[in-house]
Amino acid sequence: MQERLKQQLDFALMIDKEKNIFRQTHLSGHGRNENDAEHAWHMAIMAYLLREYANEEVDIAKVMLMCLIHDIVEIEAGDTYAYDAEGIKTQKAREDAAKEKLYSILPEDQKRELVALFDEFEAYETPEAKFAHTMDNLQPLLLNNSNGGGDWKEHQVSAAQVYGRQARSREGSERLFAVIDQIIQENIEKGNLTK
Amino acid sequence: MQERLKQQLDFALMIDKEKNIFRQTHLSGHGRNENDAEHAWHMAIMAYLLREYANEEVDIAKVMLMCLIHDIVEIEAGDTYAYDAEGIKTQKAREDAAKEKLYSILPEDQKRELVALFDEFEAYETPEAKFAHTMDNLQPLLLNNSNGGGDWKEHQVSAAQVYGRQARSREGSERLFAVIDQIIQENIEKGNLTK
Repeated sequence: MQERLKQQLDFALMIDKEKNIFRQTHLSGHGRNENDAEHAWHMAIMAYLLREYANEEVDIAKVMLMCLIHDIVEIEAGDTYAYDAEGIKTQKAREDAAKEKLYSILPEDQKRELVALFDEFEAYETPEAKFAHTMDNLQPLLLNNSNGGGDWKEHQVSAAQVYGRQARSREGSERLFAVIDQIIQENIEKGNLTK
Repeated sequence: MQERLKQQLDFALMIDKEKNIFRQTHLSGHGRNENDAEHAWHMAIMAYLLREYANEEVDIAKVMLMCLIHDIVEIEAGDTYAYDAEGIKTQKAREDAAKEKLYSILPEDQKRELVALFDEFEAYETPEAKFAHTMDNLQPLLLNNSNGGGDWKEHQVSAAQVYGRQARSREGSERLFAVIDQIIQENIEKGNLTK
């Protein structure tokens, strides 16, 4: 087999491992913990359906691909919970090392392309990166809200922490941030979030 | 909240259930059964990485979206194993009923759009539908091959059955069908497929 195609298929098989990286979020219906591949799939479809609410016009194919690949680094670096202050300190170094190792399986041109896309997501500057981050924040919020805020209760997360994470969601979509704000307020009222 | 946005968010929450629809394929490393959301995520990334091998030029955003949504109907209709002859007889009727029910949660224009995209996938006629089907066939083959053909052995699947399923993979990509053919031949030699 041609070397290029072999590298592409090796990468395709490697990313299968993302299905074993579990997050703190639980599936709706008080289900099990969600994994990164499921989260990415969900975000990509949501991005497509909700693209009309992006603050700026977005290249939706780029947003979807960004959603799909944004957690591949966690195959090596592990998932870092949004409210894990210690883990967040080392997150960038861990993910940078993982990025180099994992994307090097691909042919050089595709490595460069996907690393650039991941870096664009992380940099939070382009309309596509901002909207993808809004999905990254909204998707687990919808699941957690449907479960009565169980994930927050388990980790005793405060409203201030949730607003801290969600504050930048408005950079991708003011309209969807209004939904996020409404959900947070409802969960404060219900006592699902500490004040 | 505006009715349109509410419908979109209801649909977004509903599709979470796709993560509970399990397939016969097992994850690499002799892992657990794979679910539909993981399968769709994997297919969409593979489609992007392997698009250069499509027989005809494809709109890759359309292919990716087709991959992401193609199994949503299984939330209602259940997964039908590719080698379940009885299940396949009723598959279309079950999936048509599911399609109407599930996509009706969306605003009418988005319902029409996604139903049309699903129908296009099922019709197997456009370059995008053909290439998405090649991914639908190649993705589980890669996993199963990495596990020594365990899924075939479990169900005593014959080489003729696998070729029957995979025959149309060449309509999407002759180059990738050559890979598929090579993998099948190797598994026949190893005794993982009955003759």
